[in-house]
Amino acid sequence: MRTRAAVAVEAGKPLEIMEVNLEGPKAGEVMVEIKATGICHTDEFTLSGADPEGMFPAILGHEGAGVVVEVGPGVTSVKPGDHVIPLYTPECRQCPSCLSQKTNLCTAIRGTQGQGLMPDGTSRFSMLDGTPILHYMGCSTFSNYTVLPEIAVAKVRPDAPFDKICYIGCGVTTGIGAVINTAKVEIGAKAVVFGLGGIGLNVIQGLKLAGADMIIGVDLNNAKKEWGERFGMTHFVNPSEIDGDVVAHLVNMTKTPFDQIGGADYTFDCTGNVKVMRQALEACHRGWGQSIVIGVAPAGAEIQTRPFQLVTGRVWKGSAFGGARGRTDVPKIVDWYMEGKIQIDPMITHILSLEEINKGFDLMHAGESIRSVVVF
Amino acid sequence: MRTRAAVAVEAGKPLEIMEVNLEGPKAGEVMVEIKATGICHTDEFTLSGADPEGMFPAILGHEGAGVVVEVGPGVTSVKPGDHVIPLYTPECRQCPSCLSQKTNLCTAIRGTQGQGLMPDGTSRFSMLDGTPILHYMGCSTFSNYTVLPEIAVAKVRPDAPFDKICYIGCGVTTGIGAVINTAKVEIGAKAVVFGLGGIGLNVIQGLKLAGADMIIGVDLNNAKKEWGERFGMTHFVNPSEIDGDVVAHLVNMTKTPFDQIGGADYTFDCTGNVKVMRQALEACHRGWGQSIVIGVAPAGAEIQTRPFQLVTGRVWKGSAFGGARGRTDVPKIVDWYMEGKIQIDPMITHILSLEEINKGFDLMHAGESIRSVVVF
Repeated sequence: MRTRAAVAVEAGKPLEIMEVNLEGPKAGEVMVEIKATGICHTDEFTLSGADPEGMFPAILGHEGAGVVVEVGPGVTSVKPGDHVIPLYTPECRQCPSCLSQKTNLCTAIRGTQGQGLMPDGTSRFSMLDGTPILHYMGCSTFSNYTVLPEIAVAKVRPDAPFDKICYIGCGVTTGIGAVINTAKVEIGAKAVVFGLGGIGLNVIQGLKLAGADMIIGVDLNNAKKEWGERFGMTHFVNPSEIDGDVVAHLVNMTKTPFDQIGGADYTFDCTGNVKVMRQALEACHRGWGQSIVIGVAPAGAEIQTRPFQLVTGRVWKGSAFGGARGRTDVPKIVDWYMEGKIQIDPMITHILSLEEINKGFDLMHAGESIRSVVVF
Repeated sequence: MRTRAAVAVEAGKPLEIMEVNLEGPKAGEVMVEIKATGICHTDEFTLSGADPEGMFPAILGHEGAGVVVEVGPGVTSVKPGDHVIPLYTPECRQCPSCLSQKTNLCTAIRGTQGQGLMPDGTSRFSMLDGTPILHYMGCSTFSNYTVLPEIAVAKVRPDAPFDKICYIGCGVTTGIGAVINTAKVEIGAKAVVFGLGGIGLNVIQGLKLAGADMIIGVDLNNAKKEWGERFGMTHFVNPSEIDGDVVAHLVNMTKTPFDQIGGADYTFDCTGNVKVMRQALEACHRGWGQSIVIGVAPAGAEIQTRPFQLVTGRVWKGSAFGGARGRTDVPKIVDWYMEGKIQIDPMITHILSLEEINKGFDLMHAGESIRSVVVF
């Protein structure tokens, strides 16, 4: 069949809207009509050419929601008409990673997904002249129709609005999940969130959900203060407006009359800046503070600290897709949204048509959007 | 009173055996007759001048065992005649750190201990001409008699031999504790231990105690193979004798027919070398492997890695005094030794008199000892 898609023809160029060929689902695959897709920094990272693993031409997009329209042989867990969220981190429930019960990083299709291919080693997309187009993160939600492995879709309730829950496909789950799955924040904790973009705000609402006492947001942009407060931030720090070192400043803020050591129980880096990642670690409480790296760093960038920071009890961790098992956890997060436990609507700052998708990247560059969503 | 001690008069010089003055215990303090003391790399680190926090003159030594001979006012938990192990990590059970129940790093007397002083800000030791001599790590076990805060002694059973259990004051607890308290290794785990010295061998016996399936020891010295095997090591790797990268080699060793990702569930750095610390992290299994830094790095040295290592699920931690709460856990480890659950005797390779203490440092430099113990 043919479908309309925004194609990343080469690095550093705007996406091109075009008709493309899409083959039907093979065994274990499903075809999904994408109803809405968010535009995430990771799409931008790849499109810009900064991603060393980026390949072109490809159909980007990994934060979508839609409806199953066709299933290939052997598919049992979803059927046409089911509402689904594509999963760039699949959940096969069979591989050593899934069976470890210690990680969400399913490795069933890692090899082919990284190459932009379906598990059989081929692509379902091609240009009208036959040139193959690669899949992206196993999702390619910048296409009106796409094909995914069955293990890479989460079935969700049918009454949830696509243009909101698409955000659960990446940003919402990444932020909230880092708090509840990776850090396992407990009631009364003190936390610091570095970077109040689309991920950081979701970390903040995750912390509120978890019952944290002190939720400190750190951002260079004062406009983010109001944003943070809307989701539960209790304190805001602009590192460019304080005297001295931001780590010492944060440690002081978290001191109490009883605890004059200070430091956060949990910190989250949502910037991708390796210097900030170090600050996040060092702002942790001696003895037990945990720092969670969420942001994606530039290729080749390295984090660095004195090992003394670890020996004295700080823990350095990371989180991908919020430690969430997609098929198991994503439907729950959709329920939380529908029940009003978490907010999404205010974060969707712009709704665009597919033709306007490049504007979504412009808004991101200008820092004007939290999330732009393309609706088909 | 007067006591005999090995005094570190200045950095880089041998210890000098001399008579020194020792004041009696003040409120909350106890005087202990040291019966035996180990010589640890940390003593050497300070004596050499490499320790940026080292101060002189001081009485080093932090791995001892002895008998309480006098208690100051208000001391209730020990009495003269009690056998004790001095604790460089005290356990006050009152400070924010102890009460957090998340760390063993009691902070009750951290400030004064770091300055070589008792909690009231003074030293109990002086030279016969009145020159003050500093305490060291709150212990100063290179003196026949020493004074410590009550919260810095662990009362142990009286039938345990001093010349063996002194090692529980540092090396044994540091190694075994890193496995059971910090990493919380589970039965069936795969682990790698980098550096098979006095700490590494205790990590190995901790792993055996914890029921690890695969215990890989890594050392540049082939003589350590036999040592490791004596305590439960199942595989030995000499990085200088393999082709290619030690990380890839270790990851391959831990693969199974089912799990072709590979990587250790737990790795332990017992070298203090920041490059090895990085290898230890990167040899961890994607998704869940934890690396525990135990070794003390040279001043200013920093650890470094790509944040991707953390984002894909590896965890970087550290351990000090094996995460053990001294007064609570050290007596249990003494029991384990007496019950034959752990071994100490074969690791005590040399017994020396106080006059021979500098020979103990020479043996350490030459790599000839696992542990030298001075008996008074």
